[in-house]
Amino acid sequence: MEIHKFQEMMKHLYFERDSARGVQDTFSWLVDEVAELGEELKGTDKEAAEKEFADVIAWLASLANIMEIDLEKAALNKYNHKCPKCQSSPCQCTF
Amino acid sequence: MEIHKFQEMMKHLYFERDSARGVQDTFSWLVDEVAELGEELKGTDKEAAEKEFADVIAWLASLANIMEIDLEKAALNKYNHKCPKCQSSPCQCTF
Repeated sequence: MEIHKFQEMMKHLYFERDSARGVQDTFSWLVDEVAELGEELKGTDKEAAEKEFADVIAWLASLANIMEIDLEKAALNKYNHKCPKCQSSPCQCTF
Repeated sequence: MEIHKFQEMMKHLYFERDSARGVQDTFSWLVDEVAELGEELKGTDKEAAEKEFADVIAWLASLANIMEIDLEKAALNKYNHKCPKCQSSPCQCTF
């Protein structure tokens, strides 16, 4: 599924609630989901980790919806088949 | 671009470095990028916010690459055109 289609799906499912909650509170949810992902990464339950990855991208898409930002365009504007820092593919950054 | 294609692009650009860095340090980068996104959300620079959204999904994809997790499959397994909690579309959760 394309990134923008996934974002549209999240909009259909959750936009009413997301927009009522607002940017800062939705960002707080994203932070919580990232923390939950971090906890799962310490363990060995890959299926549980997958669910947390799903939650993080879902909340990121929800946040983008409230901000009226196209996540796919944003991603490709910065990472368009080359590293945005060194402009190489693969990345050749020396840091 | 499909989510899995974006993840493949990140793999081509960064996998050698990502895998050498490891899961925990890459997760720390993700957390830092989420914090940077949070800072931009407090301001009014939408272009800067877009770049931070790009960084968050990029680092999420990098992390999924190291974990050998397909981000698209994970997302669709959980959010397949319905809310995973109430099974409705749009979500009808009452919390």
